[in-house]
Amino acid sequence: MTATPVAPAQLAAALSDFWAPRIIAEVDDMYIKVGRLQGDFCWHAHEAEDELFYVLKGRLRIEMEHTTVELGAGELFVVPKGTRHKPVAEGECHIMLMERKSTEHTGDVVNEMTRSIDDQLSNPGPLDDNL
Amino acid sequence: MTATPVAPAQLAAALSDFWAPRIIAEVDDMYIKVGRLQGDFCWHAHEAEDELFYVLKGRLRIEMEHTTVELGAGELFVVPKGTRHKPVAEGECHIMLMERKSTEHTGDVVNEMTRSIDDQLSNPGPLDDNL
Repeated sequence: MTATPVAPAQLAAALSDFWAPRIIAEVDDMYIKVGRLQGDFCWHAHEAEDELFYVLKGRLRIEMEHTTVELGAGELFVVPKGTRHKPVAEGECHIMLMERKSTEHTGDVVNEMTRSIDDQLSNPGPLDDNL
Repeated sequence: MTATPVAPAQLAAALSDFWAPRIIAEVDDMYIKVGRLQGDFCWHAHEAEDELFYVLKGRLRIEMEHTTVELGAGELFVVPKGTRHKPVAEGECHIMLMERKSTEHTGDVVNEMTRSIDDQLSNPGPLDDNL
């Protein structure tokens, strides 16, 4: 590991695809990721893992079965394990995510939006060799 | 848990003491904390746990035995487990931290700067009942 800070907002802005998170750091058994979102993601749940969303830019709505939260820039929310949720970004939204290394991108669902961990490690963007 | 977003920058700004982190969320076995820093912290290491620093406001220098990193607002850095480090804030700096629930505040050192987890759960600030 090189001793270089990373700037999540810049790394998110440099992503070429929506809904294709990029891993930018690791903390023990968690990955820190950034993502560019626009439109609707699929409904899914992570049965055994919590998932933290932190909004870097724009707004994010997280629909859950019994409630909905709206996040603005600089706000975070943790979706508890086992909670079905659907992220929705009406406009372009950049986020930082924190989740277990074992967490599947689309949880219990595999569809055309699913991105493997290998994909998330190699997404296009300025490489920083921090991993 | 209530479905309410939290705003780390506002929670950090509301802290009354320097170097007294407040726990604002949890993700599996990790705590998310905010802190207000000014001046020098003590040298310490966390033998078994990585520690993530994300600067919300101001600048933070993290001195390590073989290198030093300088973080500005919006930058993050992970101090690897076992690495002796000393955070230094020349001016007031607000940070978000992510670390294992088992992580001791001052690592392998216990001194007047040490804050217990109970302290970190109850630090003064606007309460949000998110835990």
